[in-house]
Amino acid sequence: MTAYDDLMVHARDTEALAQVAGRLGWDQETMMPRGAAEQRGEESAAMEGVLHARRTDPRIGDWLAQAAATDDVGAANLREIRRSYERSRKVPGKLAAEIARVTSVAQGVWAQARADEDVAAFLPTLARVVALRQEEGAALASGGDVYDALLDDYEPEAKAAELSDMFGALRPRLVALREAILAGPQPEPLSGCFDEAAQLALSRELAAAFGYDMSRGRIDKAVHPFCSGSGNDVRVTTRTDAADPFNCLYSTIHEVGHASYEQNVSPDYLLTPIGRGVSMGVHESQSRIYENQLARSPEFAGWLMGRMHDRFGDIGITKPEEFARAVNRVSNGYIRTESDEVQYNLHVLMRFDLERALISGDLAVADLEAAWNDRFAADFGFAVDRPSNGCLQDVHWSVGLMGYFPTYSLGNVYAGCLYQALRAARPGLDAELARGDLGGATGWLREKVQRHGALRGPRETIEAACGFAPSEAPLLDYLEAKFGALYDL
Amino acid sequence: MTAYDDLMVHARDTEALAQVAGRLGWDQETMMPRGAAEQRGEESAAMEGVLHARRTDPRIGDWLAQAAATDDVGAANLREIRRSYERSRKVPGKLAAEIARVTSVAQGVWAQARADEDVAAFLPTLARVVALRQEEGAALASGGDVYDALLDDYEPEAKAAELSDMFGALRPRLVALREAILAGPQPEPLSGCFDEAAQLALSRELAAAFGYDMSRGRIDKAVHPFCSGSGNDVRVTTRTDAADPFNCLYSTIHEVGHASYEQNVSPDYLLTPIGRGVSMGVHESQSRIYENQLARSPEFAGWLMGRMHDRFGDIGITKPEEFARAVNRVSNGYIRTESDEVQYNLHVLMRFDLERALISGDLAVADLEAAWNDRFAADFGFAVDRPSNGCLQDVHWSVGLMGYFPTYSLGNVYAGCLYQALRAARPGLDAELARGDLGGATGWLREKVQRHGALRGPRETIEAACGFAPSEAPLLDYLEAKFGALYDL
Repeated sequence: MTAYDDLMVHARDTEALAQVAGRLGWDQETMMPRGAAEQRGEESAAMEGVLHARRTDPRIGDWLAQAAATDDVGAANLREIRRSYERSRKVPGKLAAEIARVTSVAQGVWAQARADEDVAAFLPTLARVVALRQEEGAALASGGDVYDALLDDYEPEAKAAELSDMFGALRPRLVALREAILAGPQPEPLSGCFDEAAQLALSRELAAAFGYDMSRGRIDKAVHPFCSGSGNDVRVTTRTDAADPFNCLYSTIHEVGHASYEQNVSPDYLLTPIGRGVSMGVHESQSRIYENQLARSPEFAGWLMGRMHDRFGDIGITKPEEFARAVNRVSNGYIRTESDEVQYNLHVLMRFDLERALISGDLAVADLEAAWNDRFAADFGFAVDRPSNGCLQDVHWSVGLMGYFPTYSLGNVYAGCLYQALRAARPGLDAELARGDLGGATGWLREKVQRHGALRGPRETIEAACGFAPSEAPLLDYLEAKFGALYDL
Repeated sequence: MTAYDDLMVHARDTEALAQVAGRLGWDQETMMPRGAAEQRGEESAAMEGVLHARRTDPRIGDWLAQAAATDDVGAANLREIRRSYERSRKVPGKLAAEIARVTSVAQGVWAQARADEDVAAFLPTLARVVALRQEEGAALASGGDVYDALLDDYEPEAKAAELSDMFGALRPRLVALREAILAGPQPEPLSGCFDEAAQLALSRELAAAFGYDMSRGRIDKAVHPFCSGSGNDVRVTTRTDAADPFNCLYSTIHEVGHASYEQNVSPDYLLTPIGRGVSMGVHESQSRIYENQLARSPEFAGWLMGRMHDRFGDIGITKPEEFARAVNRVSNGYIRTESDEVQYNLHVLMRFDLERALISGDLAVADLEAAWNDRFAADFGFAVDRPSNGCLQDVHWSVGLMGYFPTYSLGNVYAGCLYQALRAARPGLDAELARGDLGGATGWLREKVQRHGALRGPRETIEAACGFAPSEAPLLDYLEAKFGALYDL
């Protein structure tokens, strides 16, 4: 056995155990009886302890010192193992434990504060989380940028300054597009009876159409849609809303985008460090291109309208162009997760700027609400009415996920790039989408992105797939063209 | 921290991880997509590796050498930890790995041989399993009885020679009772339409009536009913048969007996070595007394008939005494798991004698089928027609579970003892059962048996609950009285 072999044997068991921990999380959100919550906390903590011990095992350092890669797969595995090992070793155990302890309590404090519309009740806890993450970021950054060190957990190699430039170019054109759309008439909403079983049956049909392999996955209901697992056991959840079938259908398609990435990684990489999506941003590019560029295209929407007539009967809309506007409805709203394709990134961009300022210390936790409300009014044109519609709406900061938000918008930018490349590669794409045929598009994404897992870095993955360096321009061009046509701008 | 504290901290994480491994098994039988089987094998093996390393951690030996208990709870925890540690250490790692490898393949070989009715195809594999378990038993026995060493895994402190005496006293009276019943007329079977949803709804109602706490559990369908987990997350499965609703209802009640034991262990013992059922025999005593002595009593059956009329309408039977015979139907059959209360132990007793002879070497694997068929004809009065109805019917031996079978009958014997003590303690029991009120009976079992977990050894647990030394006599007296009355013997 070479040092590389030793590393890979060790890594394989670690990956397998990480899958088990992930399945436990899935169970918690879908199957676990409510009275089991406290016991589950201990079970999950024990699993995390096992994983942490494995990831910081000092033998990894010895093996890494001796291991040599013989090909690009080996080099990528070493890169991922080194990255994980060095990050785990840089954070003192006491700090990691304190972060775990504080954030597990903080989520409850946040939920209560949100229910009570009481920002002040959350601020001391948030201040503690921010301080701990600053400390962790400093330990990881070794003198470099603290926020970058946190961001790196979700988006390896990304730099906040570069993202800031990119997002700076997005923001004014998105604000302008938003204003232009909202100055015109609103599209007709759906009407009708949307039986839950029929929603779920249609969402299964859509999942299959988008290539989700149900023999290696399953769809359950959960409060928040998510995707869990890798390789041959990749599960998604969805939710239903009797008044809004799009919630179920598009949540499912979004999660199927994530799931397809995990299911379609080369079987050669199964249970290895590169056998999964390479970053949150690239992951989000898959979920978003499935959900938006493909499933919200006017062509696919026309096909979907027919399937909805079959499933639900009268839905209040019979014209394809009206239906396309309905699935691309833009309206004023406070909530990021309920937002549309145009405004979504404006929600994310403000969180990115605010959390950077929190981590750098430029923004005091005490001033967060005011900063949030100012920025919201500037970008969205109306005032936040209450904290649950404002700075208390997202769980992320309470659980310490500073550095996560920008990956959502980066994913959208990547989806824009991939869509431009896909259209160039498949001139017949619109006709395929119009007949509900996703095979060409998902096959291209599988081949260009998904099967490679974490073989290449995130940006390199997108650049190799597209054949050009990623930028925000394709996303903006796409949004302006699509919404311009839909809304006669 | 004392050495005892160190041990308990270590044990608590091990127990939590064992719960995770158990949940993974539950998932495999209920939720896992079929394409995930191979990957799941790696995940489960990684978990087993973690658990094995923890259970054989040499620090346990050091702690045990220094630890002292200050009360009976401490003494019981030390007893369980010492037992687990010494057993794990006695079996060489290579042998344990070989057993895991061989039995995981053997189950598939057995399933195929059973499907093909081909005993010869299974025998080489069975011979290998027997040889490995003989080797393991010898390592564990340290010069003592090899079969006892295997039995000890499932029923601590039990001795095969003592069980053999007990079973020897059971056998002739069970054979005689069986013959007397089958000489008379057969009871009427049910007829009607037994909608699956209604079966499942009624089985939930029964689970609740027997005290199963759904806020700390759940009921799902699976091919084989089972119970999984401990403490605040104890799940059961059931199955349905459109022609035979008793299958679903009594399987559920049986598993609820197991689940109640795990749910009702004192919360003080949660995630400690004594925080679970003490042995397979005591576990089976709970499932069997729920299923048989309580739920198949003529009194409870009368109540159940009413509930079945409410749920299913016409079921072909309207008289309580006829219904009581229907739920206590005795008929010729080959299959242990489909057997009735009278004949069930005859199935088990023959397996006990045969597997003891296999392990001692008195019976060659090549002669198993003939020995099985001879014994079956002697006890049941008719010949085995094919291997899937004979020596290939059970999975147990293929996966190496020699020593497990006798715990089924020991559980029935214990259930007989507990029932005698319960009747003495609750003179109004029959009236309670007749109105579907299980609270008194299950409350007594909870108090006397379940809440103690593994505080005491198995036999001591039963003796303390009953106030007398357990023997086969109460079970036999109960069976002869009940079936004598039902069948006018």
